[in-house]
Amino acid sequence: MLSKKIQAAMAGSSAIRAMFVEGQEMAAKVGKENVYDFSLGNPATPAPVTFNETVKEILDQTDPLVIHGYMNNSGYEDVRSIIAENLNARFGTDFESKNIVMTVGAAGGLNVIFKTILDPEDEVVVFAPYFGEYKSYAANFDAPIVEVKPDYDTFLPDLDDFAAKLTAKTRAVIINNPNNPTGVVYDENTIKALAAILEKKQQEFGTDIYLISDEPYRELVYDGAEVPFLTKYYHNTLVGYSFSKSLSLPGERIGYLAVPDTVSDSAELLEGLGVATRTLGFVNAPSLMQKAVARCIDECTNISFYDKNRRDLYEGLTKLGFTCIRPQGAFYLWMKSPVADETEFVQAGKNYHIIMVKGSAFGCGGYVRLAYCVSHDTVVRSLDAFARLAEEYGLS
Amino acid sequence: MLSKKIQAAMAGSSAIRAMFVEGQEMAAKVGKENVYDFSLGNPATPAPVTFNETVKEILDQTDPLVIHGYMNNSGYEDVRSIIAENLNARFGTDFESKNIVMTVGAAGGLNVIFKTILDPEDEVVVFAPYFGEYKSYAANFDAPIVEVKPDYDTFLPDLDDFAAKLTAKTRAVIINNPNNPTGVVYDENTIKALAAILEKKQQEFGTDIYLISDEPYRELVYDGAEVPFLTKYYHNTLVGYSFSKSLSLPGERIGYLAVPDTVSDSAELLEGLGVATRTLGFVNAPSLMQKAVARCIDECTNISFYDKNRRDLYEGLTKLGFTCIRPQGAFYLWMKSPVADETEFVQAGKNYHIIMVKGSAFGCGGYVRLAYCVSHDTVVRSLDAFARLAEEYGLS
Repeated sequence: MLSKKIQAAMAGSSAIRAMFVEGQEMAAKVGKENVYDFSLGNPATPAPVTFNETVKEILDQTDPLVIHGYMNNSGYEDVRSIIAENLNARFGTDFESKNIVMTVGAAGGLNVIFKTILDPEDEVVVFAPYFGEYKSYAANFDAPIVEVKPDYDTFLPDLDDFAAKLTAKTRAVIINNPNNPTGVVYDENTIKALAAILEKKQQEFGTDIYLISDEPYRELVYDGAEVPFLTKYYHNTLVGYSFSKSLSLPGERIGYLAVPDTVSDSAELLEGLGVATRTLGFVNAPSLMQKAVARCIDECTNISFYDKNRRDLYEGLTKLGFTCIRPQGAFYLWMKSPVADETEFVQAGKNYHIIMVKGSAFGCGGYVRLAYCVSHDTVVRSLDAFARLAEEYGLS
Repeated sequence: MLSKKIQAAMAGSSAIRAMFVEGQEMAAKVGKENVYDFSLGNPATPAPVTFNETVKEILDQTDPLVIHGYMNNSGYEDVRSIIAENLNARFGTDFESKNIVMTVGAAGGLNVIFKTILDPEDEVVVFAPYFGEYKSYAANFDAPIVEVKPDYDTFLPDLDDFAAKLTAKTRAVIINNPNNPTGVVYDENTIKALAAILEKKQQEFGTDIYLISDEPYRELVYDGAEVPFLTKYYHNTLVGYSFSKSLSLPGERIGYLAVPDTVSDSAELLEGLGVATRTLGFVNAPSLMQKAVARCIDECTNISFYDKNRRDLYEGLTKLGFTCIRPQGAFYLWMKSPVADETEFVQAGKNYHIIMVKGSAFGCGGYVRLAYCVSHDTVVRSLDAFARLAEEYGLS
């Protein structure tokens, strides 16, 4: 007899993980090299070579009671200072160590924020298509998700719909920039427009509406695209970061939250985030990894690896007649399903050993997501399979 | 404006952490060597020397995409197999990898269990004195804690009170063996008696009552004390383990859950635990640490270090006229306050730079907890300070 909530979670369990498992089963049958698995956002280019060497240095140079021991629930003071200074140097902010809370990845960070700010029935506004887990995280605190429509040409938010969806119950708005699943980067004008609407609505309702900037893909941008740092555009911004993608460490569960002094009740909020880190059972972000990412704060994985996949997949699929949104960031490609029911299209793809994730898993049916964080060889060889799929749908 | 729940959590925030912070502030003033800080259960003897070497080997020998990458939410298959085989060899159980779920420490594991089995208003029974965080973890899922009285001579559970506290709403019972804060080890007869009561009540109410065995201190036992492995005594037992104490890795947040096939709906429960791991934002236990603890599964920190502290502190305090429960496990000493209000006694201790935690933080006033996971020198020198404290209370 499981809890009602977990039964619901299991019923609507992650379509991404489900496809990942299907891909693995298919690989076991027909051979890994014959499966074109675009399901999971699992980095395919390793951590920078210096990363493992840095970890070994830390192990050799630091007292084991320190690197493996308890620290403040918010993280090591020195690590938080290094991150604050790095953000200040890059974005002209004025963070101090007290403004940083180390987290068990971005997923842990979002849950810590939600625990700290959400009461039951508070509304969390998201921009469709959006990372499906936001719904599960909000559900942990009995808060419903409110979806904002996209502009279907650009997949930027529909600003009129955004303004219409904000209510006195809106407690948080999540921006995921660069965006998973579309790869779209919200430009400065879009951010300014969103911020203006938020300011207006806060005054109208006399409430605080927190803008949560979920930024695991910040470093993964192409064609010189710029990702605005949101604390500079809206005072009630909370930044959530993860090193999963920038340093290819998704399994290590390491990230941080940045809360500027401009946020309402910022000191109280920061204290609450520390307490939430403890009471949710995270206790603290993994200690050795805290020290390691601090020393590698200026390192980054090989972005050009993803860029090559991005260009070849986008151009290849477009040539085949598929309609795709040209990605500027992250490692996802958002493609229109040739038929309204993309679930049928995803099924058809499996016949060619192509693993895609249905758009409805991101609150936006009629599209599919391709995670191109795979080997370049997989991208190249997948195009023959896509060609047959395109033929089946009369695209070419 | 913080959530009502986090405001409550902040108000009743961890007395242990509060004393830890006070101890650090005092150390900054009068010098670390002059503060006898018995507040926090932070291991004072390092991880086994082989541990760091093993981590370095793994970094040198394994594909970084594997050691730092995503895996099944329940953990690496090979790691789970090694843990299952280790338990089988030690306790004659028959676990397979599917019975093991890797967790972000024991705190993460307990929250994953609670998410999976608790509906609001379900009751969680604990044995006073108990680890105060159980209350916070249950509160995450709107489940109240029900406290069972101890036998004040032995600090084993009062079995009659236990039987009386079990109701149709009881969903889980937590045993922490060896016990934090008393250092008492529940012997086999006690476990058999508890199991018999649980079986009887399950039948009486027609419910499943899960027995959660919280075992971070399993390896820390003295005088040859034996800690029964509970799955052998009660079919609905879920085991939660952490390597925080056995390998001195509290900051790394690594542990596991073991769920035998004998548990009701075991397969469904295990699936639920994996989903809960993901949706609570843990996603998976830290990947490099999973591989490291598996390779060090037979290693243990230096128990004799704690044993020496245990004897000298217990004997020293007893000689001074304090009434203490002789600990058989963990690294805590449970001492009777010379006055009914132990908060006053804790305050008085601070005048001699002795940092203790009040028993009421563990649901048992009139006592204090001393965490003797400190240097032996601290134990020895603290006895002069305790002597003056004893004098103040006319004990000697």
